[in-house]
Amino acid sequence: MHHNGPVGEREDQQDVTVSETVRLFDANAPLVLRSGATLAEVDVAHETWGTLNAERSNAVFICHALTGDAHAAGWRQGDKRPGWWDTMIGPGKPVDTNIWFVVCANILGGCQGTTGPSSTNPATGDPYGLDFPLLDMSDFVTVHRALGRHLGVERWALLMGGSLGGMQVLQWALEYPEDTDNAIVLAASSRLTAQNIAFSAVGRQAIMKDSGFRGGRFLSEGTAPKKGLAVARMMAHITYLSEEAFSEKFGRAAQSGELTPNFGVDFAVESYLDHQGEAFQSRFDALSYLYLTRVMDYYDPFAAPGALDALAADAVKFLVMSFDSDWRFSTEHSRRIVRHLEGAHVPTSFREISSPWGHDSFLLAIADYHETIAAFLERAATERGL
Amino acid sequence: MHHNGPVGEREDQQDVTVSETVRLFDANAPLVLRSGATLAEVDVAHETWGTLNAERSNAVFICHALTGDAHAAGWRQGDKRPGWWDTMIGPGKPVDTNIWFVVCANILGGCQGTTGPSSTNPATGDPYGLDFPLLDMSDFVTVHRALGRHLGVERWALLMGGSLGGMQVLQWALEYPEDTDNAIVLAASSRLTAQNIAFSAVGRQAIMKDSGFRGGRFLSEGTAPKKGLAVARMMAHITYLSEEAFSEKFGRAAQSGELTPNFGVDFAVESYLDHQGEAFQSRFDALSYLYLTRVMDYYDPFAAPGALDALAADAVKFLVMSFDSDWRFSTEHSRRIVRHLEGAHVPTSFREISSPWGHDSFLLAIADYHETIAAFLERAATERGL
Repeated sequence: MHHNGPVGEREDQQDVTVSETVRLFDANAPLVLRSGATLAEVDVAHETWGTLNAERSNAVFICHALTGDAHAAGWRQGDKRPGWWDTMIGPGKPVDTNIWFVVCANILGGCQGTTGPSSTNPATGDPYGLDFPLLDMSDFVTVHRALGRHLGVERWALLMGGSLGGMQVLQWALEYPEDTDNAIVLAASSRLTAQNIAFSAVGRQAIMKDSGFRGGRFLSEGTAPKKGLAVARMMAHITYLSEEAFSEKFGRAAQSGELTPNFGVDFAVESYLDHQGEAFQSRFDALSYLYLTRVMDYYDPFAAPGALDALAADAVKFLVMSFDSDWRFSTEHSRRIVRHLEGAHVPTSFREISSPWGHDSFLLAIADYHETIAAFLERAATERGL
Repeated sequence: MHHNGPVGEREDQQDVTVSETVRLFDANAPLVLRSGATLAEVDVAHETWGTLNAERSNAVFICHALTGDAHAAGWRQGDKRPGWWDTMIGPGKPVDTNIWFVVCANILGGCQGTTGPSSTNPATGDPYGLDFPLLDMSDFVTVHRALGRHLGVERWALLMGGSLGGMQVLQWALEYPEDTDNAIVLAASSRLTAQNIAFSAVGRQAIMKDSGFRGGRFLSEGTAPKKGLAVARMMAHITYLSEEAFSEKFGRAAQSGELTPNFGVDFAVESYLDHQGEAFQSRFDALSYLYLTRVMDYYDPFAAPGALDALAADAVKFLVMSFDSDWRFSTEHSRRIVRHLEGAHVPTSFREISSPWGHDSFLLAIADYHETIAAFLERAATERGL
């Protein structure tokens, strides 16, 4: 059932092997959240690449970031561009799909096929809106594990993700170290700073103050806080690039010809942000933005007593990486994770990569970065005779 | 006429000597802007402290920042707090009003008494809205000079300002170096970076996308883009403090008691930003915010050929200062100004002050900072026998 065959069309590219949505929780076996709340229907959109071997020893789970989706790599029919991490995942790439069976799922609370706050509440027949329960990082893990069982994978060779994806990996390894041998945590944080939370809060305010938000009932009322969502996205984008990257890419150039003072889009950097805001409106849901950012704000796993006990007893090999120009989750965030892991004698490699591109660096094909990932995976492959 | 007597009530405080609004341009003598556009009526709200001496040699002009006003120091009747730079200006303070005659005016395009885009357009009887002409840094200078003539001051001992205020000082000295002997430029910039412009652009988008904006006709239509203005202010505030300052002031503390996950105000940093946004709505005008931020975006004086010619021929003594944790206008911005001034052999002192408080440092009573200002003014006082 997992092998519908390639759905892409480009012969020179790795195609998505499976792209489907499955119901993993239902009224008979609802999803019980960390808060105690339940969700009676949970569908999970996911994709896979490569083939699970007979020993089931070659499975890699990719956790996506805030606005990502299950389409991490390859091409689906009609795609104009490949998946968001296509430079990382594919035949001969750092996560080599000739070796590894790779899975990526849209996150719980998301809006790309997996159940989220804009899904229909089976109890009312209307979209959940703000009746959707608040989520915890742990809830993402619960759903990813259920997908693993569905796919026949109980133990992963590797969990891997950047930003919010890295936070899911960290949480998964802390709670269920027996689930994986290796973990790669990229440009992530175990504890947002006040400034991080501030940016997050202002983005949510832009959405919630939009007259189209209607207390979260915008789907039922036929409106949408599209302008607020665009503003939130524009602001967030400023934090995804370094100041240096903004200067390199745009400087003070006009978007076309000479600067002609007005209040619209004149500087090239304005055109870039305007485009980011507009494109986001059509592909992302404002409620998902609220729910997922709020999980990040509250995440603080090492504050819990005994948080590292399980991991210390069943060590997962960690690779933690940061980028020197990332000011959203600076190297200091990664160092904090490393300090906690090393304090519990978890085998941890740490590398800070030099890159001018800021937080977005984890999505880019930076040689030093990709080579480090490739080496980590080659070691993992050798250890298991792949 | 300038000496209405103290209007404050606190005997231990320096009171405002004059607080009034005068019409400096009218239909007979309209204000001609750099763009060639004209304004037929320009009122200017201003305050003064201290006394202009007989030689008119002790006059200091203070230029305020983006959201400041003429009330820089002292107390007016009913004030709950003194002026915004009361730690800097007053008897025995770095700008000692026992020595200096100090003037501060609300900026052209502002909303605190001086004509701006929400003022009545005499041609229509309605508020200007977006029919108000775009402004240039040079236009602020034109109005400040007119106020000087009105007050009987043609040559100033000192021009002084921080942030946008410092940019006005720089422009004034470049255009009319004969107007002043000294210039203090604090936490300012001669050329916003792409990241600076990005923050500015997103703030304006938050305002213009607010359903209450109505194409800038909100006053006529009885609405107001208050929510967008609050979002713009919240975002701007993130850039006014350093990440370190946010961590020191708020960390991850709850606004009260324990964190109780929700989408409202829970973290203390959210409460702070929420308050900043709310307070700003009631004291500032959305159109002024658009007009004044846009002047900053386009400001790039050294790009013009011969920009320094006048100043090189009639040297003003400059003091340029930055704060090491300021990431809105970092020390690099100040160093660029200094490089240009020194390239033209303008006598320039430069100091970077160590402070954890970010851009807002220029408003704070930091000992090292105030002592440097005080020493610069003492030298100026001695030179003119004050």
